[in-house]
Amino acid sequence: MAVEDPGYPLPRYAFQAQGVKVVPVRVDADGLVVDDLPDDVKLVYVTPSHQFPLGMAMSRATAGCRCCTGPGGAGAAILEDDYDSEFRFSGRPIEPLQSLDRYGHVIYVGTFAKVMLPTLRLGFLVTPPSLRTALHRAKFVADWHSPIDTQAALASFIDEGGLARHIRRMRQEYLSRHEHIAGVLAKDFPELEVVPSEAGLHLSALAPHSTSEEVVRTVLRAHEAGASVGSLSAFSIAQQRAGFVIGYGGIASSDIDDGMRVLRAALD
Amino acid sequence: MAVEDPGYPLPRYAFQAQGVKVVPVRVDADGLVVDDLPDDVKLVYVTPSHQFPLGMAMSRATAGCRCCTGPGGAGAAILEDDYDSEFRFSGRPIEPLQSLDRYGHVIYVGTFAKVMLPTLRLGFLVTPPSLRTALHRAKFVADWHSPIDTQAALASFIDEGGLARHIRRMRQEYLSRHEHIAGVLAKDFPELEVVPSEAGLHLSALAPHSTSEEVVRTVLRAHEAGASVGSLSAFSIAQQRAGFVIGYGGIASSDIDDGMRVLRAALD
Repeated sequence: MAVEDPGYPLPRYAFQAQGVKVVPVRVDADGLVVDDLPDDVKLVYVTPSHQFPLGMAMSRATAGCRCCTGPGGAGAAILEDDYDSEFRFSGRPIEPLQSLDRYGHVIYVGTFAKVMLPTLRLGFLVTPPSLRTALHRAKFVADWHSPIDTQAALASFIDEGGLARHIRRMRQEYLSRHEHIAGVLAKDFPELEVVPSEAGLHLSALAPHSTSEEVVRTVLRAHEAGASVGSLSAFSIAQQRAGFVIGYGGIASSDIDDGMRVLRAALD
Repeated sequence: MAVEDPGYPLPRYAFQAQGVKVVPVRVDADGLVVDDLPDDVKLVYVTPSHQFPLGMAMSRATAGCRCCTGPGGAGAAILEDDYDSEFRFSGRPIEPLQSLDRYGHVIYVGTFAKVMLPTLRLGFLVTPPSLRTALHRAKFVADWHSPIDTQAALASFIDEGGLARHIRRMRQEYLSRHEHIAGVLAKDFPELEVVPSEAGLHLSALAPHSTSEEVVRTVLRAHEAGASVGSLSAFSIAQQRAGFVIGYGGIASSDIDDGMRVLRAALD
């Protein structure tokens, strides 16, 4: 199995716990570097619409060429984690790889954890027909079924337009927080490079003049002073890249300036 | 891994899906026949307080001697599924094996599926300290956490005494249904032998003059006529035992007579 480096560690842990050999593959400005995929890879885990944690979208040329529809990827299944694409701030929505899939080997994973709230524990898959029987069996054995009352409540919320209204409202709210943080970073953090990102609930900023160890120490100082940010190193495997991951899903806009001042002081 | 035969198939499927070799072990009037456990068994799955599906309690002598505290079982972990002991109709509550455990190798599994409702999807483990780190990691990787709002609502329900009231009320209700069905079986089904059972949401009746195939055909005829009963063969592995499993968790008392008439007609 190939995973993005840096990337979201949980799927890697889950597959490793099943004995799967996991190979990290680096990420560049176009997302996963598909030329680096091992020839014999069986499964590729990617976050194409908003790479986690760096935040870029995977190039459509890249996605359409090898990873999804080309001969090089024909033997591999693609696990597409589209965890937060509902919150895209500009441009047209990005088509999922799943919609480009001509060979029936893309498994699309969506979640209500980002668009609604993580405590729901509800997500969904869009799978090739060839996998459905196996996945139904796996779900049956692992958990039988997900909570029916919660699913029914969520289905009503969607049917009545509540989810669409929530997304429209929160997209504006998250965009405002994103621009606020990006503005402070551009003005007061000349040593950091914000990674361009058009979606989601977090942004990443590289620290090219620091080491990952220095970033971790800064993160700990900021944490002690009451501001919670992450270090890119927590998501890195073989490729160490120094930088910060700044989430804004759970912070009030009015608290952002204070948090950024704490981070500035921790860096100093 | 050893499992009861007949027994609840889901744990067997879950462990088999992980590559575990599963050995069925027969059940007698005292529950799992522990003398039949293979010497090299690593894990024993049992339903000691109310064997599923037959319904007897495991003999305390048996449980206390080899399976749980004795030298023969010292190398094996015990997975104790206490799925419905809240609904015990008579006598003192049965102590779980977990409370007899002197070697720290009993894992107690409880659920709110029977005592409350299956759509909640909440259960719990009581584990030896030696396993906690591994189980926390497994839960983290498999699911991160269970739904927090649902757990909070259930915790309030328990704290405010709602669960205890529910159990008291439902115990009477289930006892009444149990006695009703057992009475009809004793009176109108002379060819069946009710397995004595003091707890739960179902009872089993052996059909010593029938084959499992005949029972399955009877079950299908009853189903077509609107009465849902199970065949013991659905829970049997190597030991075929002809009989019926009659659940009363989801039937109104006023519908029991009609259902039993349908089963009588299907048998005829």
